[in-house]
Amino acid sequence: MENKTVKAAILGAGTVGSGVYALAGMLSDEMLQKTGGSLEIKKVLVRDTKKERDGIPGELLTDCWNDILTDNEIQIIIEVMGGIEPARTYITEAILSGKQVVSANKDLLAEYGQELLRLAEEHAVDLLFEAAVAGAIPIIRPLKQNMTAGLLTEIMGIVNGTTNYILTKMTEEGMEYAEALKMAEAFGYAEADPASDVEGYDAGRKMAILGSLAYSSEVAFSDVYMEGITRITADDVYYAKEFGYVIKLVGIARTLGERLEVKVHPMLIPKEHPLASVRDSFNAVFVHGEASGDAMFMGRGAGKMPTASAVMGDVVTVLRNLLHDNCGWNGGIAYKKLPVMPMEETKSCFFLRLLVSEKPGSLGNIASVLGSNGVSIDQVVAKHTIHGANELVIITGSVMERNFNNALKTLEGMPDIEGVCAKIRVYREQRG
Amino acid sequence: MENKTVKAAILGAGTVGSGVYALAGMLSDEMLQKTGGSLEIKKVLVRDTKKERDGIPGELLTDCWNDILTDNEIQIIIEVMGGIEPARTYITEAILSGKQVVSANKDLLAEYGQELLRLAEEHAVDLLFEAAVAGAIPIIRPLKQNMTAGLLTEIMGIVNGTTNYILTKMTEEGMEYAEALKMAEAFGYAEADPASDVEGYDAGRKMAILGSLAYSSEVAFSDVYMEGITRITADDVYYAKEFGYVIKLVGIARTLGERLEVKVHPMLIPKEHPLASVRDSFNAVFVHGEASGDAMFMGRGAGKMPTASAVMGDVVTVLRNLLHDNCGWNGGIAYKKLPVMPMEETKSCFFLRLLVSEKPGSLGNIASVLGSNGVSIDQVVAKHTIHGANELVIITGSVMERNFNNALKTLEGMPDIEGVCAKIRVYREQRG
Repeated sequence: MENKTVKAAILGAGTVGSGVYALAGMLSDEMLQKTGGSLEIKKVLVRDTKKERDGIPGELLTDCWNDILTDNEIQIIIEVMGGIEPARTYITEAILSGKQVVSANKDLLAEYGQELLRLAEEHAVDLLFEAAVAGAIPIIRPLKQNMTAGLLTEIMGIVNGTTNYILTKMTEEGMEYAEALKMAEAFGYAEADPASDVEGYDAGRKMAILGSLAYSSEVAFSDVYMEGITRITADDVYYAKEFGYVIKLVGIARTLGERLEVKVHPMLIPKEHPLASVRDSFNAVFVHGEASGDAMFMGRGAGKMPTASAVMGDVVTVLRNLLHDNCGWNGGIAYKKLPVMPMEETKSCFFLRLLVSEKPGSLGNIASVLGSNGVSIDQVVAKHTIHGANELVIITGSVMERNFNNALKTLEGMPDIEGVCAKIRVYREQRG
Repeated sequence: MENKTVKAAILGAGTVGSGVYALAGMLSDEMLQKTGGSLEIKKVLVRDTKKERDGIPGELLTDCWNDILTDNEIQIIIEVMGGIEPARTYITEAILSGKQVVSANKDLLAEYGQELLRLAEEHAVDLLFEAAVAGAIPIIRPLKQNMTAGLLTEIMGIVNGTTNYILTKMTEEGMEYAEALKMAEAFGYAEADPASDVEGYDAGRKMAILGSLAYSSEVAFSDVYMEGITRITADDVYYAKEFGYVIKLVGIARTLGERLEVKVHPMLIPKEHPLASVRDSFNAVFVHGEASGDAMFMGRGAGKMPTASAVMGDVVTVLRNLLHDNCGWNGGIAYKKLPVMPMEETKSCFFLRLLVSEKPGSLGNIASVLGSNGVSIDQVVAKHTIHGANELVIITGSVMERNFNNALKTLEGMPDIEGVCAKIRVYREQRG
């Protein structure tokens, strides 16, 4: 095979864009050896061509998408600009004009992933997006390819690094949420407006993408129940530890019969579970398949070079596909229509922390309210707590959310209860 | 695309073979949806066609390889018989006659993987072997594809489930080696002759395969230094824990400048390291890339259905490649020739456990022997031990194996030393 040079454009010259440009240079020999072809970054789309870009020669910069779109030499579009628009328009136009696309854009793929995949299939072009979920962890491809043979039934992911960093600080150093958030901001893990991370929206987008791929059934972002970590306190973390658990922000996508359950919320994870040992800003995806058993993938979910390396992994694949005239077989298109369960019909165990009065019958009253709503008590600790209040910490058996919420409503109106401090879901093996 | 049926043969109807046959049936709808084609297992090669095979219809059985080889309808050979011969001959003949091959045979691939990959490339056929290393963990494909963009520098793997089970029992229940081995045998984790597992040969084969793929440079099985776990005692495990470590059988393949280091030996891993939490018979592969950072893959390394699911993941890929007329782009061929370092030139930190006499100058004498050989002492504990002897447990700084061995030779001849009970390597971050 002769050495063929394929030309590409990068959309966006921020952190990831400059990382991709640098890696493309560092990997040129390896790409040639492994694919028989070379990659040339011909243009880089930016808003301001006057601004200096880390390591990218000024003459490559353009602020005109049309220059790239109409350049027939450019065969690969590497989209690392993020956000819905104009990325959606650019990628759509790129596909329509027969260019291959690699994207790291989780916002876009969570909302329009299936639409874009179908368009890519129609036009027989590649649309790859390994970097959009869990950065450097190669999870998209196994879900589309290898692990399809595992008859997947459950995915649990720690897919947001910022919140995992915050919860790690709270767990290991006893910090309160606000203090840990400040540290995350100081170390550049949290944005100025951290809502997307701490409210679980970022994780929700990733679970929509993973759920769609794993079960070949479209999961819309709006289908995902999301609850963030802003109400988790140092006390919750402390009591969870006493029961042998660690609190993590977990995304879950699983099949229950012919329905899906897709949600993101804080969760008590047993400290022996592999996800419990995923610390700091690391991401991890835990997968259970009927045939493959349990598997876990862990790695850097964000950051300049980890994300750039995931993008370049896809670019190398596209390069190879172009050289072998075999683009357009993306996989990942949803062919089933499995409904996503309403949250109140899902089942969980709960960690419930209550402030109670010291009257002798209190525990009995609480237990009977729970019992009459079908909520069993698995473990209970009553304490004159670290703050001197009368606290009751309960871990319940598995119960439908609707029933649990009914019980909680009754409890909140009882004179024995001075306050419901926390309700956090608890991991329990659902299988077998 | 019309529904096309592709025919395949399975070589071997043991545990994995019957698992593959069962999964092929269970996945038929999914395969059709995802590839547009169907798979039919037309023949199954066995030694004895009279013997009943779990779930496989008797009329598919044949004891004649030539019946399969000369059947032009059969396009995919699924080799799950294991061992070097006749598997090597069969796979070679299959490739020569243009059939695609999926193999789970680590023995064969560790010895002849590069030879067979080159042959497959010449004849433009697929040769896939995800199941040959770490069973259900999709590690082969990321090494060949995605993670190539990570500029890999280090792989550390727990790639033998039997030894990990034994060491887990020793760590968590304080068992001696012999007792834990018996349990492994009782639960079917260890073979009647456990040498291949406990001496590290099985792990060594897998590291040869992983090392070749990760660094695009052929690593022969004979290049791999191997040391097993048969000399690890409950005392070693106990002291390791005191220092904050867990003992694991670890395979390492890393680059050091223009050379490779590939080895398998027991190792003290800090308890915070992700590999330390890999328990029971689970496997895990920890990968460091300059760009991708740290990543870890964990899962079932063996067992009927986990292995079968890895095999079927490859079969689905081959099916898709056949339908799109795109077989033969395997990747993974070594194009570099990096020498593997002799073990005595590699560097490690050591855990050293000595029985010493109670003379006042003993520690000083030992320290000066170590010091004069360039061995620094990082941590030391002197004890009247659990057995009442005078024990000295030392963790050294990083030292070249040759120097350490010289020091040890001198120590063994000293009157102060009653015995060298253990020397085990210790993990230390090599980077940065």
